Amino acid sequence: MKTMRSLIAVLVITFASVTIARAADPLPSWNDGKARQSIINFVTKVTTPGTPDFVPVAERIATFDNDGTLWCEQPLPVQLYFALDRVKALAPQHPEWKTKEPFASLLKGDLKTALAGGDHALLELVMATHTGMNTVEFEKIVKDWIATAKHPKTGKLYTEMVYQPMLEVLAYLRANGFKNFIVSGGGIEFMRPWTEAVYGIPPEQVVGSSVKTKFEIRDGKPVIVRLEEFDFNDDKAGKPVAINQHIGRRPIAAFGNSRGDQEMLEYTQGGQGAHFELMVLHDDAAREYAYGPAQGLPDVKLGAFTQAVYNEAQKAGWTVVSMKGDWKQIFPAEKK
Amino acid sequence: MKTMRSLIAVLVITFASVTIARAADPLPSWNDGKARQSIINFVTKVTTPGTPDFVPVAERIATFDNDGTLWCEQPLPVQLYFALDRVKALAPQHPEWKTKEPFASLLKGDLKTALAGGDHALLELVMATHTGMNTVEFEKIVKDWIATAKHPKTGKLYTEMVYQPMLEVLAYLRANGFKNFIVSGGGIEFMRPWTEAVYGIPPEQVVGSSVKTKFEIRDGKPVIVRLEEFDFNDDKAGKPVAINQHIGRRPIAAFGNSRGDQEMLEYTQGGQGAHFELMVLHDDAAREYAYGPAQGLPDVKLGAFTQAVYNEAQKAGWTVVSMKGDWKQIFPAEKK
Repeated sequence: MKTMRSLIAVLVITFASVTIARAADPLPSWNDGKARQSIINFVTKVTTPGTPDFVPVAERIATFDNDGTLWCEQPLPVQLYFALDRVKALAPQHPEWKTKEPFASLLKGDLKTALAGGDHALLELVMATHTGMNTVEFEKIVKDWIATAKHPKTGKLYTEMVYQPMLEVLAYLRANGFKNFIVSGGGIEFMRPWTEAVYGIPPEQVVGSSVKTKFEIRDGKPVIVRLEEFDFNDDKAGKPVAINQHIGRRPIAAFGNSRGDQEMLEYTQGGQGAHFELMVLHDDAAREYAYGPAQGLPDVKLGAFTQAVYNEAQKAGWTVVSMKGDWKQIFPAEKK
Repeated sequence: MKTMRSLIAVLVITFASVTIARAADPLPSWNDGKARQSIINFVTKVTTPGTPDFVPVAERIATFDNDGTLWCEQPLPVQLYFALDRVKALAPQHPEWKTKEPFASLLKGDLKTALAGGDHALLELVMATHTGMNTVEFEKIVKDWIATAKHPKTGKLYTEMVYQPMLEVLAYLRANGFKNFIVSGGGIEFMRPWTEAVYGIPPEQVVGSSVKTKFEIRDGKPVIVRLEEFDFNDDKAGKPVAINQHIGRRPIAAFGNSRGDQEMLEYTQGGQGAHFELMVLHDDAAREYAYGPAQGLPDVKLGAFTQAVYNEAQKAGWTVVSMKGDWKQIFPAEKK
């Protein structure tokens, strides 16, 4: 009987804290305004039983772009810094890189010339630095790098340059029965080693671009080897395709920040029931970066939020978040 | 206060039923024996905190083949019956099929001649019957078919010809914090419409073979169109590759029944911590079918459990389940 009483006490306390957590502001880093309200309205309506907009838990799928939506993608996407550091680390084994582009310029510290080769140069960089090893080895390389690499401007870890208001959206959705997925143009195996710790998103809920892989017995052990061949580009029209392949359900909420996310948001909007689409506008040069339509630029940098996408967002009624106006705080508080 | 008391009552009752459910035999359709005991031993050790074999909940990934492992694949895999019925349904729109193989033989009811063309004939059949429509349309076609199509021998729905002992394994693992995935050579979009209702496995936990797809705006609506082009064969060495792509973690438990599952079990066995591998041996001609090594056959039918796989299973220490000896009951009880 005593045990039963203790048990009841535990249950009551648990229940009480859940109630308190629910009652508290789920989005404390958001200024009150249209953007914040649109998120709360959506979550409230799809989780209220007996209403026409109610969505069963199993169908509460939300998809998030990563670069520029969940973490900072300026001055360059983080994965590119990873590739650059890998080039430096691997250079001693590749004497031919001294005279071969894009490696030669990179090793001289001339990023601009190295990247002048465009997509072709990028692909060569990724292949030379992301393949050949097995998946367990690659995971360790990424984990070691992400634990120490610092942002060139702020000197923070990249995983400290995630957006606090978006962490709150992830937690708010999760608390309301949503399953959150990352659907990013970034490498699927570059993200998986750290998304669970940083975003609470497990590897099986990460979708991204990929290289081909092969099952092999190496040194008597069964492994998956990363091949020097591109497999899937999870960007633009590739995002709905990858969502269908990995998730098999149409999301009811989608979050992005660029041209690369447009089709994902369109696909989400095309669903039958209630749906929600959000684009993050980078207009805060003081606290983060300002690029895309915020600067009146026609088409800047990799996958930017162009004026055309901004116009579509307005027309389609997507929520556009002004980082400057809607977010009280950009990055999580410093750990003391 | 009255509300709080009712709440406590509800919580206590809920907790009590959970306790009772846990104490009851989790595998009532299994005869006591080595196979049953190996499952219980494995689950017990990976879920007991403080032991070297303990595995955190997030890493409790189990993968299941479908055809012949979770449901009956004889006399032909279910998806083939679906393709045959689709040929009949589509024949009026395809007068050319009257003289074109494999369609001509099929329409005359001569299955043997139709399938004599091997993989090429099969691929042609699948492409002609599984592509061209969008994914929402295909889902409806599958749902309508699976709700009414009957097994040629038993006259039961195919979804009634799932293995009761394996349903119990799925539930037992789920109750112990496992995430169950299907990893099947069958079509990913042929399985997803019904796996949640039948196995408790949601679409995002189903991995399978696939055709290429494309994001398109059709009649003003954003859809995913199924293209007449094969994409991925989720069989043999393709299974670990697909597991890595979809799940991003190595399973700690894998269940199969054929040559097509061998690499998935090898990959699972190659993990660092505790792991479990199981092969279902079809040796019960009276209650189901007997094929593969049970019949001393060297290599029979699609993806059969060959003698070579049986030998590897013995050598590797995988659990081999005799349907005849280990299972009290094969199919779920008839609904009265």
